Amino acid sequence: MECSLIEIAQHAGGEILGDGNRQVSGIASIQSAGGTDLVFVEDERRLGEALASRAAAVVAGTFCRGKSLGKPVLVSREPRLVFARAAELLLSPDSSHAAIHQTAIIDPSAWLGDGVGIGAHVVIQPGAKIGDLTTIGAGSFVGEGVVIGRQCKLAANVSIYQGVAIGNNVVVHAGATLGSDGFGYVRDPQTGRYYKFPQVGRLKIEDEVEIGANSTVDRGALDWTRIGRGTKIDNLVHVAHNVQIGEDVVIAAQTGLSGSAVIEDGVIIGGQVGIADHVRVGSGAILGAQSGIPTKKVIRGKGVVFWGTPARPIRQLLRELALLARLAKRQANH
Amino acid sequence: MECSLIEIAQHAGGEILGDGNRQVSGIASIQSAGGTDLVFVEDERRLGEALASRAAAVVAGTFCRGKSLGKPVLVSREPRLVFARAAELLLSPDSSHAAIHQTAIIDPSAWLGDGVGIGAHVVIQPGAKIGDLTTIGAGSFVGEGVVIGRQCKLAANVSIYQGVAIGNNVVVHAGATLGSDGFGYVRDPQTGRYYKFPQVGRLKIEDEVEIGANSTVDRGALDWTRIGRGTKIDNLVHVAHNVQIGEDVVIAAQTGLSGSAVIEDGVIIGGQVGIADHVRVGSGAILGAQSGIPTKKVIRGKGVVFWGTPARPIRQLLRELALLARLAKRQANH
Amino acid sequence: MECSLIEIAQHAGGEILGDGNRQVSGIASIQSAGGTDLVFVEDERRLGEALASRAAAVVAGTFCRGKSLGKPVLVSREPRLVFARAAELLLSPDSSHAAIHQTAIIDPSAWLGDGVGIGAHVVIQPGAKIGDLTTIGAGSFVGEGVVIGRQCKLAANVSIYQGVAIGNNVVVHAGATLGSDGFGYVRDPQTGRYYKFPQVGRLKIEDEVEIGANSTVDRGALDWTRIGRGTKIDNLVHVAHNVQIGEDVVIAAQTGLSGSAVIEDGVIIGGQVGIADHVRVGSGAILGAQSGIPTKKVIRGKGVVFWGTPARPIRQLLRELALLARLAKRQANH
Repeated sequence: MECSLIEIAQHAGGEILGDGNRQVSGIASIQSAGGTDLVFVEDERRLGEALASRAAAVVAGTFCRGKSLGKPVLVSREPRLVFARAAELLLSPDSSHAAIHQTAIIDPSAWLGDGVGIGAHVVIQPGAKIGDLTTIGAGSFVGEGVVIGRQCKLAANVSIYQGVAIGNNVVVHAGATLGSDGFGYVRDPQTGRYYKFPQVGRLKIEDEVEIGANSTVDRGALDWTRIGRGTKIDNLVHVAHNVQIGEDVVIAAQTGLSGSAVIEDGVIIGGQVGIADHVRVGSGAILGAQSGIPTKKVIRGKGVVFWGTPARPIRQLLRELALLARLAKRQANH
Repeated sequence: MECSLIEIAQHAGGEILGDGNRQVSGIASIQSAGGTDLVFVEDERRLGEALASRAAAVVAGTFCRGKSLGKPVLVSREPRLVFARAAELLLSPDSSHAAIHQTAIIDPSAWLGDGVGIGAHVVIQPGAKIGDLTTIGAGSFVGEGVVIGRQCKLAANVSIYQGVAIGNNVVVHAGATLGSDGFGYVRDPQTGRYYKFPQVGRLKIEDEVEIGANSTVDRGALDWTRIGRGTKIDNLVHVAHNVQIGEDVVIAAQTGLSGSAVIEDGVIIGGQVGIADHVRVGSGAILGAQSGIPTKKVIRGKGVVFWGTPARPIRQLLRELALLARLAKRQANH
Repeated sequence: MECSLIEIAQHAGGEILGDGNRQVSGIASIQSAGGTDLVFVEDERRLGEALASRAAAVVAGTFCRGKSLGKPVLVSREPRLVFARAAELLLSPDSSHAAIHQTAIIDPSAWLGDGVGIGAHVVIQPGAKIGDLTTIGAGSFVGEGVVIGRQCKLAANVSIYQGVAIGNNVVVHAGATLGSDGFGYVRDPQTGRYYKFPQVGRLKIEDEVEIGANSTVDRGALDWTRIGRGTKIDNLVHVAHNVQIGEDVVIAAQTGLSGSAVIEDGVIIGGQVGIADHVRVGSGAILGAQSGIPTKKVIRGKGVVFWGTPARPIRQLLRELALLARLAKRQANH
């Protein structure tokens, strides 16, 4: 999509220095920019490079004020945010050629909104509903009674079990599995054998969630698993049955959340973190990569970084590690 | 399926208090129960809530004896087990409309039992055998010569490489990969390049195993990888070549078992555990989440919990952690 | 493929003791060998067993010299390497019956080389190019403009996003996702909401790379993610946006590499290792399983083993663990 800098500033914020009528049609890195691209700099030392690039215009921090620029610049205290929002506008998908591939198997009782795009070999089961402008990638499976909102984007080979409810503007990457059975069994104390505890609850994914490639989110056992609005989940993440994730939570790759864990709004979770069952992570807490939170533990502290297994405030953990290193070194030197 | 409480007790155990002819057709949580559902309570404090719910009947612990109940109750010292087994009966799949979708590609040399259900876009290669009443979800791939037993349930987009052998009543969740090549290479000391060690063994999965979404189980290099009867594996678990897993083992999400590891019967493994190559975990041992067992190590102790990396008895690990915290705190206070 | 020992020695190295005209057509373990198989021994104690097996010939270490053998033997100081290279020759795929399945959806603008095999229900988008003798497994998705080299082997249900570039002789296992969006967002400090940072870079996978089942490799944000020649990646591994992996790197299962990490040539990474963003791991370093490398850290040391989180030289870590265990034990004994 082609836009003027003025249109971009209206959508994304920032103040224009130079020619606001400059047309831009894509985004790129400084090195790879072509003549109609927008680039960005947050590090003052790279401003010269950005201005010397082939880009049509630059998004930059306030450090560029008062300098001779030679290219139109969109200035902001948050250049990365302005650039992200500009990209949102410039890269907005062109839905004009959405189509339903003839090899897709769509049950007659399923309902498709306007402008829905369905890839080749997709399977849509009875009673499913797909909202306007949503696209579903090749080879994906949409189970019975699944409801997907507007303008969602599912990539290839996604599997969605029956009854999952997905909001608007949700992105699901390739290979993700949504609504699979939770991992619940009851051991017969006489025989040592395991019987499956019923996994017949449901899964609700709210608006603007993004779910990474090959991640898995289980349905509730009897009630719901829920992922709140705006939450972003990376690749190969596991979300177990009955987990409740709040809004605007960020979860990096390969993290696992065990059954009935509660993650409150605004939590940031690093990669490979393990959260045991029935844990509660309070609003705004930050969990460093590879941390582990033992069962039923409550973690609280807005903006506090926790690290290690069992997770503790990072200052405490670093103090412990430093002490141990010192003691071991002292002893080795004896 | 609709059953009387008497029929449920016959299948699932428990003693009926009240009207044994009460008909039940589903299971639910206390909050979501409808008028024909069975619910369960293991916590005495929630008994009142269960009895006041819309449920047709309740499974409860022995604490309900001698109380005025107002609803038929199935009493047991193992209410969770009785409920699980009741659910097994009530939710038993209706195979009467199993069908073979016309878009499935089934090699003429493959053999399908009675009542087999094959989803859309499934691919079944030459010589495969699918037992009676087994269902295979849309988009799944069943390689050459794969043998699958009776009453198995494979979800969507499962990939099974050639020659894998699967028993009866096995459940495989969406996106799982079974029988992929193990990770074995030989480095040429002259050039530093890696050559693939042949991965031409096979994979055997015994009866009543369940394998979670997007998990991967590799075939043996030259011999077999084996998963024993009744073993339950969660999502995103990795089982490497030549691993031998016994019966009734439980493995939580994101755990990884390296090549030739041996897991004896009845072991319980938490999430994100890492087990190195050639490790042996003795019968009935319990490995806490995120533990790590170094290469060739033998872990023994029925019912003993091991934790940490390298894994040690949990009491020892907790003592070490407590001591370190105390020393670091003392020093910080100086 | 059937070969004489002489032909095998020409391809794989090693010196023939006994009848070099002995024909061999497969490889196997000592236990499972049939009369035309090649087996190998690296442990002298198993030589007798190998010679007594049904195998046609044996690859063995130099310990077999001067012994009475009774079977033709290929001797080498690197018997495992010779065996791997022999298997490469004996198991080389027979491309004579490669075919394009009639249910594959191949855009007319895609280009396919000679002898390409395309499985059932594969989808190939506009502008894709598939090199000679490459095979693509059932249900796989090849996005717009993807370029795949010669003699690659993609298994079932692989998903490749638009624009990914793959070299020659690359193997990709089932369920892997290549070129998915990186995990990049910008938080709006006013609202706490996250906006997606554009993920429009590309992914380049060089010759002879192998990628395990259900692994995920993200495209660059604005520039490239790169996996260098000969690198081997196990199952369920995560490679984030802009990561640069050198040549002949080995990465075991469930390891995660965060954004912009650089892994130099010849690095060996164990399973479940976590590498934070902007880390650099110097050429030839070895990272033990479950290690963690914190953000921006540089690790150097050819042949040095690092372990723990934060990763440190293994001798140092083991000293620390031993000291802590000793102190805790001493205190418990008081």
